[in-house]
This record gives sequence, structure tokens and C-alpha cells, in this order.
Amino acid sequence: MFLAKVKGNIVSTQKNEYLSGHKLLLTHPIDFNGNYLGEKDVIALDLIDSGIGDIVIVCQEGDAIQQILGHNKAPVNTMIIGIVDNIEINE
Amino acid sequence: MFLAKVKGNIVSTQKNEYLSGHKLLLTHPIDFNGNYLGEKDVIALDLIDSGIGDIVIVCQEGDAIQQILGHNKAPVNTMIIGIVDNIEINE
Amino acid sequence: MFLAKVKGNIVSTQKNEYLSGHKLLLTHPIDFNGNYLGEKDVIALDLIDSGIGDIVIVCQEGDAIQQILGHNKAPVNTMIIGIVDNIEINE
Amino acid sequence: MFLAKVKGNIVSTQKNEYLSGHKLLLTHPIDFNGNYLGEKDVIALDLIDSGIGDIVIVCQEGDAIQQILGHNKAPVNTMIIGIVDNIEINE
Amino acid sequence: MFLAKVKGNIVSTQKNEYLSGHKLLLTHPIDFNGNYLGEKDVIALDLIDSGIGDIVIVCQEGDAIQQILGHNKAPVNTMIIGIVDNIEINE
Repeated sequence: MFLAKVKGNIVSTQKNEYLSGHKLLLTHPIDFNGNYLGEKDVIALDLIDSGIGDIVIVCQEGDAIQQILGHNKAPVNTMIIGIVDNIEINE
Repeated sequence: MFLAKVKGNIVSTQKNEYLSGHKLLLTHPIDFNGNYLGEKDVIALDLIDSGIGDIVIVCQEGDAIQQILGHNKAPVNTMIIGIVDNIEINE
Repeated sequence: MFLAKVKGNIVSTQKNEYLSGHKLLLTHPIDFNGNYLGEKDVIALDLIDSGIGDIVIVCQEGDAIQQILGHNKAPVNTMIIGIVDNIEINE
Repeated sequence: MFLAKVKGNIVSTQKNEYLSGHKLLLTHPIDFNGNYLGEKDVIALDLIDSGIGDIVIVCQEGDAIQQILGHNKAPVNTMIIGIVDNIEINE
Repeated sequence: MFLAKVKGNIVSTQKNEYLSGHKLLLTHPIDFNGNYLGEKDVIALDLIDSGIGDIVIVCQEGDAIQQILGHNKAPVNTMIIGIVDNIEINE
């Protein structure tokens, strides 16, 4: 699981049937100071009403998401699981 | 899950029996501006009729794909799950 | 599984229901001399009472964690599984 | 799933019992022009009679391989699933 | 699955209960000539009596390891599955 910032929405009409009605957000990994890390964006399912600009926790795990969606055929393995209020650092 | 662009088709006659009749595409990760990221191509199963040049969402998850194919012995873990119409960015 | 150092706590109130009451720590991969590796922090569930400054073993595996939490819908795949007392190296 | 070239055979006598009798090949990721990518070799189980020099499709997925081998205790998660005859590219 | 060299032992007393009595080794990825690759060590469970200095095959897969340990709550996903006697290369 890692920190990421929500950057945008993905609009897709031709897609797997089990994704219909679900919000897919474009996120990007960040460090705890909010700096972007690397170049690769991560697309994540959102079920907790996060939005653009939020700092979030992203989890890459398929089985639990399929249980949550109620479809063992749902091909989704990345999910926003929490919005970060604060990070207490003590290096 | 990540953004990728479809670059080509893979032709393979000597392969695992559960892959017969399924289309395998060569995709490459991109950023939201369409620039290629890194050097490594990703081979993905296509079940939503995507084609060369499409911007797609790629998911790497085995269990759901095996349920979709109806074979728990199908050794496939990468799938194109949506064709991207538009990305709304607000950094 | 890899070595990491615990750097901080993540505070999140708006999150997946199955994460309520569980401690999420910010960890960072290290080498066996304690030097940080790379830039990406890793967020891990802690069930063994580790704290900031500890050298820990981090495991990324979803199924066992869901069994431990008793919820097959818990979207968590990273866990602190041990606090390291000592590493005996002989290269 | 990714493209790789088969570079060699791994000989191992002291190994997990469920691996006995199975061929383990040393492969290396390549781009679609056949150039090696990165430094890390990938060890893959071969059940489709591929050999040194072949361009192959490698899949990293545990569950299906365990079903194929008929042992849910077989600790194997990388498999050669097809030999590539041709790649049709249109960037 | 990848090649690695065993570099050391991890000593941990405060750990997940399902890890008690199991040997955790510090390994590092290598190429087929024995050169270390990257900076990140990999911690692996050993059940085949490998030791420091051995060239081994490391597999990252959770389900089979949990079956082998007989605990579906065992949070372990990395295992040494074979000691390498020889690698026959023909590039």
C-alpha cells in the first residue's frame, strides 16, 4: 500500500461489464511531503468518495475488491482505501 | 491498473491450451499525455475488442480473469479492461 | 518480504470500514545497514505493536491478512510481520 | 505477462518436492525487437517444450500454475505460456 | 522466480505467531554470473536447509506457502524453493 495523490478521472464507455457504474480515478504515487514519485500513474477504483487533490492510501489486491464488488469476475485490483488527514513523521 | 497504448498483436501457435482462441495484444505503459514510459512491453488478453492505437486500462490480476475465461487452469494474469475515451486532469 | 524502518503514523478518518481500529504505519525499505532504499514509502498494517524507529519485516500478501482480520472484504495487502533484533551477515 | 528470451537451464537437485521432474528455464525480458531489458533474469517453469533461444510469453501467476500441476502446495508462480511466432507492430 | 544468493540470517523474537520456529534468510538477487543486482535485499522463508553463500531460486507466492505451512493465516509470501547446482547458459 502506498501514498498517492488523486489527479484526474478516467472516462471509459467501452469496458468490462463489471466496471459499469464504478468510478476510476487517476492517481500518482507521492512521498510524505507530497512530491510526485516516478512517472507512472496508477488507476484506482474509488468507493469512499475521494476526489481530485486528495492524498489517499492505494492498495493493490484483487480478492478483497472482488468480494466488495460482489463479483468474482470483476477484473479490478487497485483501490483507494482511505483519505489521509495527516502523517506523523519521526525519522 | 495503469494506462497503456496498444502497439501490436502477438502470434503464437505453440501455447498453453487455455489460451487458444484468445487475442493477446502487445501494450506499452503511457502517461496521461500519451508518452511511453519505460522500455518493457506488457502482453495483455483482450476481451473487449480493443485494437492497435487504442488507449486502454490494463489490469494485472489472475483470479478474476480465470473466472471470466471459465478455466481455473488458465495461466493468464493481464487483461485490457477498458478503452479510455477521455482523461480529465486537474493537478 | 523486505526490511524496512518505521517512519511514521498515517491518520485517516474517511476510509474503508474494515480498516477501522487498525494501525497503519508509514515504513521505508532499507538495506541491512539501515540505509534507506529508493524514494517510495510503504504503508503497512501493524498487529505486533511495532513503533517509530523499529527495523521490521514487511510482507505484501493479501489472503493471509484477510484471514487474520477475519474479513474477506478487507482491502489490505501489506503487513508488518516481525521486528528485527539482529541480522547476521556473511557475504 | 511479458516477452522474454530463453537463455539457459537451471539444474537443482536439492529443491521443493513439488518441483521434481519439472523443467526450470532461465529467461530474460526483451523488447519486441529482441533487445534484452534490465539485468534481472526470470526463472520460469516450462510445460510447452520451449528451448534455449525461443522468444516466449512469460506469465507470473500462482493459482493457475498450482491447478495445472495438480498440487496446491507447489510454490511456483512463473510459467512460459507460449512460444512467439511473430509480433505484428504498428506504433 | 529469480536467482539470489543467501547473505544472512534474520533474528526476530517479536513476530507474527505463525512465523515461530521458521528460518528467515536474507537473500539478494543476482545474475547468472553471481553479480548482485540492485540494492534491495529479499527476506525468504527457508524449508530446504539452504545456508549462507548458497545460490538459490526464490519464489514470491503466498497461497502455496500457506498450504505448505498448514496455516491460511501465515503472512509469508517469499520462499527459497531450490538450491542451484549449475546453470547451463547459451545466449
